[in-house]
Amino acid sequence: MDTVLKTAGILIIGDEILSGRTRDKNTQTLALWLSDLSVYVREARIIPDDRQTIIDAVRDFSQRFDYAFTSGGIGPTEDDITSESIAAAFGRDYGFHPEAQARLEAFYATDDRPFNEARQRMAKMAVDAELIDNPVSVAPGFQVENVFVLPGVPVILEGMLPGLTPRITGGAKVHALSISAPVLEGDIAETLKAIGDEYPELSVGSYPFLRGGKVGVSVVLRGTEAGDLRAAGDQYIRTLKERDIEPFELPVGSSDGSIE
Amino acid sequence: MDTVLKTAGILIIGDEILSGRTRDKNTQTLALWLSDLSVYVREARIIPDDRQTIIDAVRDFSQRFDYAFTSGGIGPTEDDITSESIAAAFGRDYGFHPEAQARLEAFYATDDRPFNEARQRMAKMAVDAELIDNPVSVAPGFQVENVFVLPGVPVILEGMLPGLTPRITGGAKVHALSISAPVLEGDIAETLKAIGDEYPELSVGSYPFLRGGKVGVSVVLRGTEAGDLRAAGDQYIRTLKERDIEPFELPVGSSDGSIE
Repeated sequence: MDTVLKTAGILIIGDEILSGRTRDKNTQTLALWLSDLSVYVREARIIPDDRQTIIDAVRDFSQRFDYAFTSGGIGPTEDDITSESIAAAFGRDYGFHPEAQARLEAFYATDDRPFNEARQRMAKMAVDAELIDNPVSVAPGFQVENVFVLPGVPVILEGMLPGLTPRITGGAKVHALSISAPVLEGDIAETLKAIGDEYPELSVGSYPFLRGGKVGVSVVLRGTEAGDLRAAGDQYIRTLKERDIEPFELPVGSSDGSIE
Repeated sequence: MDTVLKTAGILIIGDEILSGRTRDKNTQTLALWLSDLSVYVREARIIPDDRQTIIDAVRDFSQRFDYAFTSGGIGPTEDDITSESIAAAFGRDYGFHPEAQARLEAFYATDDRPFNEARQRMAKMAVDAELIDNPVSVAPGFQVENVFVLPGVPVILEGMLPGLTPRITGGAKVHALSISAPVLEGDIAETLKAIGDEYPELSVGSYPFLRGGKVGVSVVLRGTEAGDLRAAGDQYIRTLKERDIEPFELPVGSSDGSIE
């Protein structure tokens, strides 16, 4: 079994997120997809559409993590500067990528929209980049070294992930066990500390919530050893029941109570 | 008129965001609140509950921006390590803050929950920190230098912002004008480039969307000169109308079409 964790960094590029105009969704989408592939996000960063900021962040993430993902700034307009910045970050030639251009040409040949200069811009990137298929709107993403460059529109980004999956090699699987109950953090802190002390290799997180009129705390245990996870979870549930507290029954499809 | 921009950085601290379990909401809340106060977010960063990572990021943000905000990790459980890390980042004494302790004591004196060791932990921080009132759940946030330390639960964070407003001094106001229309980015790229060339001090962003069955692009113009903004917006709308395209009529309360 692989015991080395694989890590990733996510770079969300776009003034519209930093202004508050748009709420970022892609970090969560990428994090869940990567977690399924046994790759763990160690940092997500939202930065403006600024060339040098993009270059610095991409280089940093490429070095620090096994994989880096960017989202945003690869469209047809002048504020889309991600592709050029990525090429610059790695000292690659920036220009028309033959295969990307061929795909876009073929698409617009059967479309009533003109394949104008702006749309041709979507074929410009590091000329030797490896393309990432876009089944939603044709214009491809691309990969340079360990950096995967994706669009900002959530539905398009989501559509590109299944095709990208084979390029990602996961590491050790971190299992997670989530248990939610009608308690307050201040009342379970001692119990969680004891569990953390007994299972030092597990991470123990507690997240208060208020949803559907229910107040409670979700305790999330994480670790590579599923057996320890189950034992620690049982210990927590036992402590709850000693106090006559029942964990919430959660809807089917919820991750609560099952080891992922 | 103040012509210097004031900047901010946002630090979201929490493994649960990086795992994809929880979708971050606080970045948008803080960004919108700050934008109203004429403070502009230049970076938002999501980091794990890791002491050294928090220390490094807080120092970096405190130096690079006028204001830094953190969210998460100030609760009563062992995984809440933000307060101690902030004290360490600035070399301050970490311990019970007398006023924070007094507030929590007074609250739990009238409550049936015990003021146990875990809850007392919420009074620990840099002992000379300036408190931030918490009208929702009493346990205060705090300020050390230009760093404002806030909780992760969105409803509590939101409740603390109005009381914090007087401590924020804005700079030059960046006005924004948003115009949405049933167009595609590839069809308006030339027009936007011309507007950008004519008004180089404005930032011109374009954001494709699909909502309520409508496909279109929101063009967002930003700049400190409201007159230029209106002129550039009028030019864009004129170009649309020359092509028989009407901007969307948007619901009351939408920011489209009005200068903020």
